[in-house]
Amino acid sequence: MSSFFGQHLRLSLFGQSHGEAIGVTMDGFPAGMVIDMARVKREMARRAPGQSDLTTPRREPDEPEVLSGVLDGRTTGQPICAVIRNTNTRSRDYGSGVDLLRPGHADYTGHVRYFGFEDWRGGGHFSGRLTAPIVFAGALCSQWLAEQGVDIVCHIQQLGSVRDRSFLDYPPDADTAHLRQMALPVLTPGLDAAMEAEVLRARAAQDSVGGIIECRVTGLPAGLGAPFFDSVESLLSHLMFSVPAVKGVAFGEGFGFAELSGSVANDAFRMESGRIVTETNHSGGVQGGITNGMPVIFRCVIRATPSIAQPQRTVSLQKGENAEVSIRGRHDPCILPRAVPVVEAMTAIGLMELWKERQACVK
Amino acid sequence: MSSFFGQHLRLSLFGQSHGEAIGVTMDGFPAGMVIDMARVKREMARRAPGQSDLTTPRREPDEPEVLSGVLDGRTTGQPICAVIRNTNTRSRDYGSGVDLLRPGHADYTGHVRYFGFEDWRGGGHFSGRLTAPIVFAGALCSQWLAEQGVDIVCHIQQLGSVRDRSFLDYPPDADTAHLRQMALPVLTPGLDAAMEAEVLRARAAQDSVGGIIECRVTGLPAGLGAPFFDSVESLLSHLMFSVPAVKGVAFGEGFGFAELSGSVANDAFRMESGRIVTETNHSGGVQGGITNGMPVIFRCVIRATPSIAQPQRTVSLQKGENAEVSIRGRHDPCILPRAVPVVEAMTAIGLMELWKERQACVK
Amino acid sequence: MSSFFGQHLRLSLFGQSHGEAIGVTMDGFPAGMVIDMARVKREMARRAPGQSDLTTPRREPDEPEVLSGVLDGRTTGQPICAVIRNTNTRSRDYGSGVDLLRPGHADYTGHVRYFGFEDWRGGGHFSGRLTAPIVFAGALCSQWLAEQGVDIVCHIQQLGSVRDRSFLDYPPDADTAHLRQMALPVLTPGLDAAMEAEVLRARAAQDSVGGIIECRVTGLPAGLGAPFFDSVESLLSHLMFSVPAVKGVAFGEGFGFAELSGSVANDAFRMESGRIVTETNHSGGVQGGITNGMPVIFRCVIRATPSIAQPQRTVSLQKGENAEVSIRGRHDPCILPRAVPVVEAMTAIGLMELWKERQACVK
Amino acid sequence: MSSFFGQHLRLSLFGQSHGEAIGVTMDGFPAGMVIDMARVKREMARRAPGQSDLTTPRREPDEPEVLSGVLDGRTTGQPICAVIRNTNTRSRDYGSGVDLLRPGHADYTGHVRYFGFEDWRGGGHFSGRLTAPIVFAGALCSQWLAEQGVDIVCHIQQLGSVRDRSFLDYPPDADTAHLRQMALPVLTPGLDAAMEAEVLRARAAQDSVGGIIECRVTGLPAGLGAPFFDSVESLLSHLMFSVPAVKGVAFGEGFGFAELSGSVANDAFRMESGRIVTETNHSGGVQGGITNGMPVIFRCVIRATPSIAQPQRTVSLQKGENAEVSIRGRHDPCILPRAVPVVEAMTAIGLMELWKERQACVK
Repeated sequence: MSSFFGQHLRLSLFGQSHGEAIGVTMDGFPAGMVIDMARVKREMARRAPGQSDLTTPRREPDEPEVLSGVLDGRTTGQPICAVIRNTNTRSRDYGSGVDLLRPGHADYTGHVRYFGFEDWRGGGHFSGRLTAPIVFAGALCSQWLAEQGVDIVCHIQQLGSVRDRSFLDYPPDADTAHLRQMALPVLTPGLDAAMEAEVLRARAAQDSVGGIIECRVTGLPAGLGAPFFDSVESLLSHLMFSVPAVKGVAFGEGFGFAELSGSVANDAFRMESGRIVTETNHSGGVQGGITNGMPVIFRCVIRATPSIAQPQRTVSLQKGENAEVSIRGRHDPCILPRAVPVVEAMTAIGLMELWKERQACVK
Repeated sequence: MSSFFGQHLRLSLFGQSHGEAIGVTMDGFPAGMVIDMARVKREMARRAPGQSDLTTPRREPDEPEVLSGVLDGRTTGQPICAVIRNTNTRSRDYGSGVDLLRPGHADYTGHVRYFGFEDWRGGGHFSGRLTAPIVFAGALCSQWLAEQGVDIVCHIQQLGSVRDRSFLDYPPDADTAHLRQMALPVLTPGLDAAMEAEVLRARAAQDSVGGIIECRVTGLPAGLGAPFFDSVESLLSHLMFSVPAVKGVAFGEGFGFAELSGSVANDAFRMESGRIVTETNHSGGVQGGITNGMPVIFRCVIRATPSIAQPQRTVSLQKGENAEVSIRGRHDPCILPRAVPVVEAMTAIGLMELWKERQACVK
Repeated sequence: MSSFFGQHLRLSLFGQSHGEAIGVTMDGFPAGMVIDMARVKREMARRAPGQSDLTTPRREPDEPEVLSGVLDGRTTGQPICAVIRNTNTRSRDYGSGVDLLRPGHADYTGHVRYFGFEDWRGGGHFSGRLTAPIVFAGALCSQWLAEQGVDIVCHIQQLGSVRDRSFLDYPPDADTAHLRQMALPVLTPGLDAAMEAEVLRARAAQDSVGGIIECRVTGLPAGLGAPFFDSVESLLSHLMFSVPAVKGVAFGEGFGFAELSGSVANDAFRMESGRIVTETNHSGGVQGGITNGMPVIFRCVIRATPSIAQPQRTVSLQKGENAEVSIRGRHDPCILPRAVPVVEAMTAIGLMELWKERQACVK
Repeated sequence: MSSFFGQHLRLSLFGQSHGEAIGVTMDGFPAGMVIDMARVKREMARRAPGQSDLTTPRREPDEPEVLSGVLDGRTTGQPICAVIRNTNTRSRDYGSGVDLLRPGHADYTGHVRYFGFEDWRGGGHFSGRLTAPIVFAGALCSQWLAEQGVDIVCHIQQLGSVRDRSFLDYPPDADTAHLRQMALPVLTPGLDAAMEAEVLRARAAQDSVGGIIECRVTGLPAGLGAPFFDSVESLLSHLMFSVPAVKGVAFGEGFGFAELSGSVANDAFRMESGRIVTETNHSGGVQGGITNGMPVIFRCVIRATPSIAQPQRTVSLQKGENAEVSIRGRHDPCILPRAVPVVEAMTAIGLMELWKERQACVK
């Protein structure tokens, strides 16, 4: 646990924002897959800073070096370790650091947790930068799942006050390939312009803005996930809540279920071309914690980036008195575009864990 | 995993609704605690059916028998196993069972998951009845936490269209003891009558109704929870999504964060009587995945009970054709009153796991 | 960990010698196996006391009650819990108990470990009686493995000064079915009489005697076990050292390897009927921690039962001074006959864990 | 599992002999320890090849680079990752590699295990080289334990036919510091010369030689280890059997217990300066799987290095026919001197895991 995740596909994450390197080890990955390195880098580029004028102008190459587990471009079945060097670490940007606690950050809680010995520089082990190796690991899982016919895609369902439609009423067979190309992926054509305006407005106000990412997975077999404690929802939410800034996770109709009566919320079954399907998909493809073969659909809410240039009330840890902090440096006014590939990566990691768990159960 | 949970406080859950017994083993529980059995039974009674006319008239004694781990009423530090016999199991109520798939239930997914060998009677291992041993285990954890000054309490924040206020703007020191006595615990005096009407309306319509449970934990020290994968939110959501019918979990402002700008969402720090506190608690007491000493506040949405008396479209598994099912028997038109102690129990289990994890880290 | 074992096939053990019951929960067992209950009871009878005049005259029915995970005699794929009631618990036999520490027992270490709150009656959670549910769980695994063609068998290779030959130079296809019928299973005809004399001699001297159990597994595929930490030897030794009284575990030539030069110790490869085999089996069927398809052969040394009637020097815990203890009651002068089915059960549990782990890895 | 170990102190090992790098991530290590890097390097130097003319003349710098978890020389409480680059990898030495299976190596079992996709070069993930990061991790644990007063030391108790005395009858307070300086550490003065002659004899004969390493741990508190599955013996043997070439592990009198009657084998208790001690230490400091405060003493047998220059019978994997292999290259005629620091490192890792487990249990 802690920096470890998984029982069948096991991850171990390490590194701090301003240390030597960050990285991940993944054990239990199947042998024999030819890694599509272009795909891996494409995914990592989507997460990297500096991709558009909506994100921080910081540029980090985020070049993963694979240290183990791969021979001649093919997975060996042994632990895959990849590291990413930290190169562009201008520590002075983080100013007074561990003295003036940045509101909304982990400065205070990390200080307590690690008894004052934490690497506080740039958020340390709490930094969103730790999601880079996550995207690396997720890209391998995503490729493996794609080879089994599974597709994972996200869009931004809400950004500040701008709301997109939902995958719940989006045709399952409509093309979604364009979403992966968009800086602000939306289902409703043109809505990204309104979202972009919202981001620029926040930046101009030295402020930041949050939103909701919706994820859809198609091509999954029925039967993944296990009661009592390893429901699909349990595993995926566990991973999603590990992503910095995620504060809520909901499946299918999510919090809308509060107002749906049972007769509406139940998804009726129907035979279709010899297969059992549901007429509606309010449950988001998961019933009793197990996939039912319908698209898995869930949402994560992402709070607005805590790093804002406005002065904020805080406490000086060293003086033990009230103070004010102004966070300088290059920050994202909206983290959602860069969080999209992270949510997809975590989804791939969680589903592959469940896939492997299922595989061990087959008689 | 699966029916196991935890690394430091380890749970193993077993049983099916209509098997011989259900139960739980808990390993890693501290030695030397005198179990307050009256408290345990009180918690279990809150979850048991037949408590009021809002729930199913089924009555089950739910008497836990402690098989191990306790000597002269005191925990020994060794595995505590408790079993609850299944007595009132009128299997015929479940009618055509594994043939006609009940919409919204795990009949279909369980059938796929277990290759047709599952115990389908009364929901089997998927039954909400499995939450009885969870409440037993949670009651022990809750007592232990209470001895450390931790208090866990829930209210129903929404039931159908009736909405209560939130713990987020409720005075932290206001008394909440009465909530544990109410059939429909609410913060707004009198609102339970409106909720009761909503439940009775649903029952009259042979329908069911869902809602939102909000939970608040006070008295926690700062420093519980660990990045990257064992954030407080990860652990608690993992457990909450194991509870049948939970479809969403959110901390602090939850999905409301989508519309909060960073300058509003950030909780400013302040010195108060020599302690670091936050002026607001939008984050729900968790920052960077770690408790900050403020009340931990989160919400779970509970979908309407899938068991409704109305005829529903479905599929006959045995004939492989479309069919109709009418679920007879004694069912809850609204499961929220009985889910409240389950949410509290899961919270206690998760927090104690985090407490023990922290304890192992202290130098 | 602690009372939990396994990642793919998960065990949770509970109970104390003189508590209400002892038992085990096994999660991850494949669905659909028709349990051969006669076989299970036969295995449990081999372990139970009172089987011959070589063991304690105590008689305990050791009747397992299956509480969950089985429907109509078939495994459901869900957690299997079995409990065994403690019936014949004459506590007074254990005399001064937690005061006078019994040498060689866990009275002292258990007292420290559990801060004085342990259930000390009859050895409590440390009692050899806890191996009864182990044999139950092992019998199910053993049946499943037998259905895949795997055979597990033990003999007593040494008892006091009497030594039997080894499986290492025993014809792999020679019949071993009779070993399961013998009170003192040996490969050399007639040697059991000499061993029996050794046991009776020990009993007459109010003493006890130890020995070595050798185990052989045939029918295993190559490829089970995984570096770095989950070698076959690691898993099996972990389980064997959980059995009370086991103080050493060795594979193939074991401690004899110290005197073998590399040119002798290496097992040369050879093609045989299109299969790769080794000419010798010094390594005991495990190379690089992974099965090579040859018989897996290992040995456990079992120390003499610590419960002896002779007076022994010890300490009074309550008075904090030197004292003498004489252990009354009905004890085994030699535990080896009853340990044989336990070693077989643990072997089955470990191999099934490795089998399931392997299954999750297949592409 | 697999390349992961531990619940409280968690290790993740990665790398292959001839890949880019090997390394280890350790999570759960206490915050605030100033790493004694000279000590770490000294331990790694003891394991590195080329230390004396008894080992392979290969020289590898084995310079660990710490990527994370350390700030200003102090542990942060976050995952510590260290990598060691593979520099001196003359692959051609390994000749026909995956074609001609080297007897006694993991070439064949690794091939089956990883479906032919394994990195076979130089033993790949199975290589003894993987013990270098183990020694790194162990050195940190060893330092932490030393700060708590724990001392871990090994000697070579047997090398081929040359036998040393045992720690069991060695004065606990006799100085052992010189053992860490000796190429062949022995308790009997001068015996290392006889052992050295044995090694040189083996090398001259193009052969290799094995032996037994005995380890002693002093300064441990009573109460470490936990029944049922996490006995001290279970944890330590699990780790020892992960070390390539270890084929047997035994505690205290070990296999000698077979011939000890209970009245001899039992360690009588006695009060000594207000503390409970045992008069003898046949059990090797572990009773009921838990430390009793006496020195923990155990032995590992190490088989002779399988890499020998003599021609050996084998199989050509590619041709599927019998063949002969001569292993060229620079190999150790006796691995014991280099295995000593590995056994010490594994011991430190296992004991620290048990220490942390215990810490989580304290009320």
